[in-house]
Amino acid sequence: MDGVHLLGEWYGCPAHTPEFNRAEALREVCLNAVEASGLTTVGERFYQFEPHGVTGAVVLAESHLAIHTWPESGFVTVDVYVCNYTADNTAKAQKLYDMIEAVFKPARAHSQKILRGGKDG
Amino acid sequence: MDGVHLLGEWYGCPAHTPEFNRAEALREVCLNAVEASGLTTVGERFYQFEPHGVTGAVVLAESHLAIHTWPESGFVTVDVYVCNYTADNTAKAQKLYDMIEAVFKPARAHSQKILRGGKDG
Repeated sequence: MDGVHLLGEWYGCPAHTPEFNRAEALREVCLNAVEASGLTTVGERFYQFEPHGVTGAVVLAESHLAIHTWPESGFVTVDVYVCNYTADNTAKAQKLYDMIEAVFKPARAHSQKILRGGKDG
Repeated sequence: MDGVHLLGEWYGCPAHTPEFNRAEALREVCLNAVEASGLTTVGERFYQFEPHGVTGAVVLAESHLAIHTWPESGFVTVDVYVCNYTADNTAKAQKLYDMIEAVFKPARAHSQKILRGGKDG
């Protein structure tokens, strides 16, 4: 099963971004972005750290989205992994990634795209 | 925030493995392996596909575990991502990865280790 995995590290995100430190706000952004990208949520879980930080995962029919925030450092990591089971979901994955990046507005981003699986998977 | 991300694609896994196609069985293996590795679960979500396949994510205090199975192809993908916030969790991540791999017994595995984040994160 071939697929594409986008990994991001976002630095210098503005600390006042509400999604940085409120699990419910980040959850809403993620679920809306999944839907807007044409991907399908089948489950999700977000967790609020004290005193700060949010971590969460959205289980997709196509694989997963995971996100972790460190507001005290202006830092976010994100993973968008989609498998191309019935269609090529690469463009949808990129759209999802870009929509969340637009919320956090990093001053500097390190992104990787990894191809996973293959014909014999 | 530096961390390590282990990505695996496992091929040729025996089709009769119960965790391949039962969300509850896979959930139990994952949660037990997290605990045995010394990592901390803060949330989880597993989903059963019809007619086959399971997908799930465990949200960790240290970041996340995600796993997707295709029993019809004997194929599994797994992600273990841990951040080294208060300690170096690399050995725990590898232990978690190895414990789940031992359940699926792939004939062939493709594994990658990616270092994420850095000093300025």
